Amino acid sequence: MTRELFDVRTPPDALRIVLDRLVPLSEAERVKTKDALDRVLAEALCSPSDLPSFRRSTMDGFAVRAADTYGATEGLPAYLEIVGEILMGRAASIELQRGHAAVIATGGMLPDTADAVIMVEQTQAVGPHTIEVLRPVAPGENVVQVGEDVRRGDPLLERGHTLRPQDIGGLLALGITDVCVARRLAVGIVSGGDEVIDPEHSPAPGQIRDINSYTLASLVLRDGHTPRLHGIVPDDYTALEREVRAAFEASDVLVVSAGSSVSTRDMTATVISSLGLPGVLVHGVSLKPGKPTILAVCDGKPVFGLPGNPVSCMVTYGLFVAPTLALLAGADAPTQKRVAARLTRNVASATGREDYIQVRLEERPDGGVDAVPVFGKSNLIYTLIRADGMLKIPLDAGGLLAGTPVDVMLF
Amino acid sequence: MTRELFDVRTPPDALRIVLDRLVPLSEAERVKTKDALDRVLAEALCSPSDLPSFRRSTMDGFAVRAADTYGATEGLPAYLEIVGEILMGRAASIELQRGHAAVIATGGMLPDTADAVIMVEQTQAVGPHTIEVLRPVAPGENVVQVGEDVRRGDPLLERGHTLRPQDIGGLLALGITDVCVARRLAVGIVSGGDEVIDPEHSPAPGQIRDINSYTLASLVLRDGHTPRLHGIVPDDYTALEREVRAAFEASDVLVVSAGSSVSTRDMTATVISSLGLPGVLVHGVSLKPGKPTILAVCDGKPVFGLPGNPVSCMVTYGLFVAPTLALLAGADAPTQKRVAARLTRNVASATGREDYIQVRLEERPDGGVDAVPVFGKSNLIYTLIRADGMLKIPLDAGGLLAGTPVDVMLF
Repeated sequence: MTRELFDVRTPPDALRIVLDRLVPLSEAERVKTKDALDRVLAEALCSPSDLPSFRRSTMDGFAVRAADTYGATEGLPAYLEIVGEILMGRAASIELQRGHAAVIATGGMLPDTADAVIMVEQTQAVGPHTIEVLRPVAPGENVVQVGEDVRRGDPLLERGHTLRPQDIGGLLALGITDVCVARRLAVGIVSGGDEVIDPEHSPAPGQIRDINSYTLASLVLRDGHTPRLHGIVPDDYTALEREVRAAFEASDVLVVSAGSSVSTRDMTATVISSLGLPGVLVHGVSLKPGKPTILAVCDGKPVFGLPGNPVSCMVTYGLFVAPTLALLAGADAPTQKRVAARLTRNVASATGREDYIQVRLEERPDGGVDAVPVFGKSNLIYTLIRADGMLKIPLDAGGLLAGTPVDVMLF
Repeated sequence: MTRELFDVRTPPDALRIVLDRLVPLSEAERVKTKDALDRVLAEALCSPSDLPSFRRSTMDGFAVRAADTYGATEGLPAYLEIVGEILMGRAASIELQRGHAAVIATGGMLPDTADAVIMVEQTQAVGPHTIEVLRPVAPGENVVQVGEDVRRGDPLLERGHTLRPQDIGGLLALGITDVCVARRLAVGIVSGGDEVIDPEHSPAPGQIRDINSYTLASLVLRDGHTPRLHGIVPDDYTALEREVRAAFEASDVLVVSAGSSVSTRDMTATVISSLGLPGVLVHGVSLKPGKPTILAVCDGKPVFGLPGNPVSCMVTYGLFVAPTLALLAGADAPTQKRVAARLTRNVASATGREDYIQVRLEERPDGGVDAVPVFGKSNLIYTLIRADGMLKIPLDAGGLLAGTPVDVMLF
């Protein structure tokens, strides 16, 4: 199973080839809604009740029968008798007759016989139990109706939605105190390379510390899943095959950060294909950085052989691994966070290749934002660190000119 | 201490009044770099060494002395003798004489006497130990130099930087296996209101379930700090004072989600001012939703009285609490995630007031994005849930017309 058997694919084609072979994992778990921030809903939710469940005042003032205020002006006010006060958090048991009003605070419950609230600022006290109303209110004015926020049976959130702070609050408002969410995926991570050592150790000449295991683990965490580091494997077929298989069996998704030489990459592809059918589907993507990416599905489980270069590794994670995790978790595609900016200098690109350029963002005095390319070889991790985001040069653009408005994908 | 004593402030003025009274907390903690994702650096970091620490090949090919290849063409190749192979992860001990080459893989270490790498594709084997070189290479070609990624002593990351996946990888690449980060802030959250009940319970008429405690806790978590829920306090001065004081003493920052009536808000302001000097600094902001916001500093600790309405509560958290947490943690202001969109309909606004409008984003067939306003009263939590973000109508804009290009702040 060597590279030569595979055509180089465009990034969207390569991704589709993998996603077409996968189905969302069916396992879900119930968690407390208050602990479900950033989890992916595994069920569609409908409202069990009306919210609010009673008519509420949106102002401090007086619950009234609107008809009693019709025609009221400052010169010719309506006079109403205060027959009581509505206590917060209590059923409004006061019955208003014609010409009656009840003191009500913001959030208080309207009595059945009231249909509007007049703001205290639009009234004037003229006795211990009498107010002048200086303008009319319409029925429903300053009132939130039953079910105005959500009606019983209304769809609330779709399956696949990632829960945000306001979603947590909104579900709890309806008494939905636990929710069914997608299980976090176990993402196995294996780094390969005779030259790669644990970052806790001091490299001898020729050795480098492992970068990709930890960058990948952090990316997986950010995506809401569980990274499992399986350590560093030497460039030896038997060792690689053993470690990769063990990691594969313990994971929902496996990411191998392979070495950068052709022989290592071919060995990685062979090992991946040995894990199950159909095996390697894509070996080589028309992408820079990231060309030598391996995409595979083995016995229904996605396996990725990402380039060893840290920049390539991060770019290909974003293009291929992140959307695969979203599919398996049944999550809606996340909105990519972007900033509109203006490119400060020409960047070249080969046609027929999708290029990703790291950029630093700088605010201009006019309030706009400049995207300043951070150039560097794809094995220089600090080009990623000096950058705020990336921009894509489309397949056939052949580069971008200075001054072009661009959408920067933020890290 | 009533509302009348305070002028209504613009949102930027209100925020500055609070931030001017605060200094970053000095406490920091050392954590493992691999566990430091999204933590805020409490130290500036410089590189302890050159990265890479040896010259590395970026290609599979042959380490050579560039001068030996000068003038080589396909018609008149240079002939080099292969004198050995450089093993990955090992010191390159081979000494190249004139006319010598050594097999090297991507990432391999260059021998001292080599100064370039010729790609294997640009050579041809003509014997077991001889290659033809079909084009010349310049000194340094296909080589990453010592310190080309980072030089010893180079500044790496500033104090206040929030660690991203690539930062974790980059620090570990240099053997920086632990870092000094700002302590997570303990953010106390108190909800007030006689009508508010725990979401686990069923509301009687007039009662509503607590929304804000959980929305606020989720926002605090997203900002990398530790929310501490102190429960729901009735609208009773003694109870409120006792609970708020206890929460204040246990927190770095206190957020009270007060009731919505004027009397409750005034009581909250009085309680907050009793916590320490100078007490309430702002009571009322020219902002919709969120006007009745209380901003205070008590004995050097920020205290917020946010409106009880869920939409107001979330808007004012973003405008006032989030930047305060960033200041206390010594964090750089985070880049607000925005999407450029086009407003689909007119929205009105009073001049002299900053308005926040919830919008739903919809992709247009032309690839652009529409921002569709989601209207609703500020006590309707589902207006936030149906929205993807918010847009700001500046203080004196007096509204925005349909078709205006807008920047949507994503939730």
